[in-house]
Amino acid sequence: MKPSDQITAEGILFTDEYQLTMAQLYYRMGMHERHAQFDYFFRSYPDYNSHKAGYCVNAGLEWLLDWIQAARFREQDVEYLRGQTGRAGERIFDGDFLTWLRGNGTFDGITLRAIPEGRVVHPNVPLAVAQGPLAMAQILETSLLNHLNYPTLIATKAARIHAAGQGRPLLEFGLRRAQERGANAGARAALIGGADFTSNVGISHVLGYPPKGTHAHSMVQVFMALGEGELGAFLAYADVYPDDCLLLVDTIDTLESGIPNAIKVFEELRRKGHEPVGIRLDSGDLAHLSIQAAKMLDEAGFSDTSIVLSNQLDELVIWQILTQIEEEAPRYGVEADHLIDRLVYGVGTRLITSQGASALDGVYKLVAVRDEGEWVPAIKISETPEKTLNPGDKLVWRVYDRRGKATADLLSLDDEDPREVDRVLLHHPTEHTTYRVLDQRDISEAELLLVDVLREGQLIYECPSIEEMRERRRADVERLDPGVKRLVNPHIYHVSLTERLWDLKQELIEIVEEED
Amino acid sequence: MKPSDQITAEGILFTDEYQLTMAQLYYRMGMHERHAQFDYFFRSYPDYNSHKAGYCVNAGLEWLLDWIQAARFREQDVEYLRGQTGRAGERIFDGDFLTWLRGNGTFDGITLRAIPEGRVVHPNVPLAVAQGPLAMAQILETSLLNHLNYPTLIATKAARIHAAGQGRPLLEFGLRRAQERGANAGARAALIGGADFTSNVGISHVLGYPPKGTHAHSMVQVFMALGEGELGAFLAYADVYPDDCLLLVDTIDTLESGIPNAIKVFEELRRKGHEPVGIRLDSGDLAHLSIQAAKMLDEAGFSDTSIVLSNQLDELVIWQILTQIEEEAPRYGVEADHLIDRLVYGVGTRLITSQGASALDGVYKLVAVRDEGEWVPAIKISETPEKTLNPGDKLVWRVYDRRGKATADLLSLDDEDPREVDRVLLHHPTEHTTYRVLDQRDISEAELLLVDVLREGQLIYECPSIEEMRERRRADVERLDPGVKRLVNPHIYHVSLTERLWDLKQELIEIVEEED
Repeated sequence: MKPSDQITAEGILFTDEYQLTMAQLYYRMGMHERHAQFDYFFRSYPDYNSHKAGYCVNAGLEWLLDWIQAARFREQDVEYLRGQTGRAGERIFDGDFLTWLRGNGTFDGITLRAIPEGRVVHPNVPLAVAQGPLAMAQILETSLLNHLNYPTLIATKAARIHAAGQGRPLLEFGLRRAQERGANAGARAALIGGADFTSNVGISHVLGYPPKGTHAHSMVQVFMALGEGELGAFLAYADVYPDDCLLLVDTIDTLESGIPNAIKVFEELRRKGHEPVGIRLDSGDLAHLSIQAAKMLDEAGFSDTSIVLSNQLDELVIWQILTQIEEEAPRYGVEADHLIDRLVYGVGTRLITSQGASALDGVYKLVAVRDEGEWVPAIKISETPEKTLNPGDKLVWRVYDRRGKATADLLSLDDEDPREVDRVLLHHPTEHTTYRVLDQRDISEAELLLVDVLREGQLIYECPSIEEMRERRRADVERLDPGVKRLVNPHIYHVSLTERLWDLKQELIEIVEEED
Repeated sequence: MKPSDQITAEGILFTDEYQLTMAQLYYRMGMHERHAQFDYFFRSYPDYNSHKAGYCVNAGLEWLLDWIQAARFREQDVEYLRGQTGRAGERIFDGDFLTWLRGNGTFDGITLRAIPEGRVVHPNVPLAVAQGPLAMAQILETSLLNHLNYPTLIATKAARIHAAGQGRPLLEFGLRRAQERGANAGARAALIGGADFTSNVGISHVLGYPPKGTHAHSMVQVFMALGEGELGAFLAYADVYPDDCLLLVDTIDTLESGIPNAIKVFEELRRKGHEPVGIRLDSGDLAHLSIQAAKMLDEAGFSDTSIVLSNQLDELVIWQILTQIEEEAPRYGVEADHLIDRLVYGVGTRLITSQGASALDGVYKLVAVRDEGEWVPAIKISETPEKTLNPGDKLVWRVYDRRGKATADLLSLDDEDPREVDRVLLHHPTEHTTYRVLDQRDISEAELLLVDVLREGQLIYECPSIEEMRERRRADVERLDPGVKRLVNPHIYHVSLTERLWDLKQELIEIVEEED
């Protein structure tokens, strides 16, 4: 795309056409500056077919804020809209509306609350709440969803892969398989969720993390084609990077050629006073090969070198590799724990595309409209009860039990405080007769999750650093019940309504059904 | 992301770290300006689990060319690299290499051939061939893969969904669920592959297509919250867009409320001299509801209105809907063909993320190195025979049979011409004893697929318009055997080697295995 086109395609027109046709309708009806509230939430955890997430990691807010603050209707954007014609050849957008857009088409009226990046989050909990003039709050929808859905999906996948890897370093390698420039948002989200570094140079620079990488098969192939073989390639690499020597050993044959050649080079490095970093395995049976590699490296006196694994890894593949190592390593005289402690994971495609669940189903739904100085809760009912909205302006509480573990997220009306009552009723969001009651003494903490981010377009929030987001994620994951963290078939975390919110919801459903 | 950061993250540093460490190694060894050839190809068709593609649609080239022509190492990029340190605290990149990069780090030496966008393509066929100085050809890898893999994945998915929809209009609706700014590349690829329009306003503007969209549930909810109900919302919409009135009818109850209200509004529109466009169904049993909707609209005298379907559609869901309509419609006195002819498909998530197969496995592999004025073919063998490279500089031919259908893609050495021999031998790429022979009179045409795009960095190719790419795709799909186009379990299209290329490949494999 040409740079000038990129500015057009990524600015305020980075939205769906229907947001603009609705905005004009609101304008025509005199409703465009009436305040409305939209909740952003996802309906279900990513489901990877054979496994499913039990929690998500929230991400994407900072770059959404960057977009909101820069987006406005430029003259050329308005001119483009002026040229749009409908079926009968008439202009779709009228001059008065376009004049209004040109003068008022910014997000300066939007007030936004949101859950910070890095926090553990769950379905049907508002992760962002936008209030503001109806027309611009509507136009915001598409870009808000775009900026939040994908990063949360990837931060979640990274958290799972990190967990499967038992805390060993996780490198994000997915730039080549991502959705074009979306790769940068993906790499950032991976860092928030659990990756330690990325191979992506540009985004590493921007975020202040050192990028990671050594060499590819092509380097070995070049030396082979010129008659210097794999050993020649390894010697050259060690010569140029004597203190950062990590060699890819599977270009010809891992056990017969790659590792023996690597060991020769490592021995020479050590003679010259340098310690090698390790090897990378990128094909074959990674569990078996890593055991054999460890054995060969141990016997050659390189028992501290890293073994980097790559090639179609994800959380289940890593889990399987570790299980196989634990079973198989002792048979070869290799200590499984020591081997696992030297592993590093390079994960590309399956992380950056969240393979198996390639989208988060986040939505942005109208939950209240301002009328005569009062918020009127709005609802949309559905034949699927789980899809019926939780109406009105709500507070989001995370309730911790006596062990300090998160036991539920609780949605309440905006004047409720579960810390001020003796017994807290947690109502199931859709089933009439299902609820549980917590005694106040069973609750160690009730925490509000949404923070103020924008007040009428003004940023009133200091975005934390990526490192702070990572710390936040570690702390939140630590406070999850182990059952919720299971990779397969996790325990369902409770997202509940207070009794008053439940009653309001039922009342609105009845009104709609009577009108129907 | 801040705009200045975006320039950094999307410029020449939009690459993997190992490309830079390898480039420095080539520089240090005096090999950085030695010419090399890399082939870009994918190894297998997207596999969506329960179904699998039998052909792909090529896309992404034009935006790759835009990137290549703009990318260069700016002073600040080089300064960033200068600051990178290794394990021992030493600088990773030395001053002389960085000086060379700053002065020579462009793609001005790259010569590129490629298959045009919109063409049908198959596994293991080079879709792009880069020749040029080793260091920069290596640095190009990541961005080339990024710019080509994803668009080809999405153009392919769009072609499948278009085919399932029997040629009825297909609208791309995925911006909100895509990988952030990658959404724009996805929408463009969808248009090339089979979508007719997109809801994405900005990219429609850039590409010269009118964006499509009408209204969402939220508009109906606003009117409901203010006491004016669904009918009030529909009347307002018809008032503002009398010639483009397409109403979303499932906010409350499709058959009991939405369609009856839409019909009332349509009748009023017609009294005023306007013809309504139609309705959109976004939930429930879309096959059953579209039959009932057609019946109600027909009975009210609106038998020409469109019925737009959306909600988690993909090629199998559309196929199922059409099958169900064909079976069920007659029972309700609705003519199935007439109903199908009024359908329009809005497809979001499952198109823009290629759900089920979220990445194309495209790779960029070294196949030749220039040495003493000669191209030396390079190979990488693999324990999986399908992954062993086809070496050297090759031509790509598409061979058509007497019916004019494509019967095989044939890779040959660069001095071979299958039109000049009586009998063409098509060798299976990996199985020693499998081949077929075509008599020249069985061949109606043998076409070269790669075209010259860049000559030493200079663009010598005029990118076709999106409409021309769409036309190219239609023509290529038309020339595929019906078995290859099956949505499920397609016939395998032949990608073959000439006898001489097969012999070269075997020779190189033997050399590597002897060295091993």
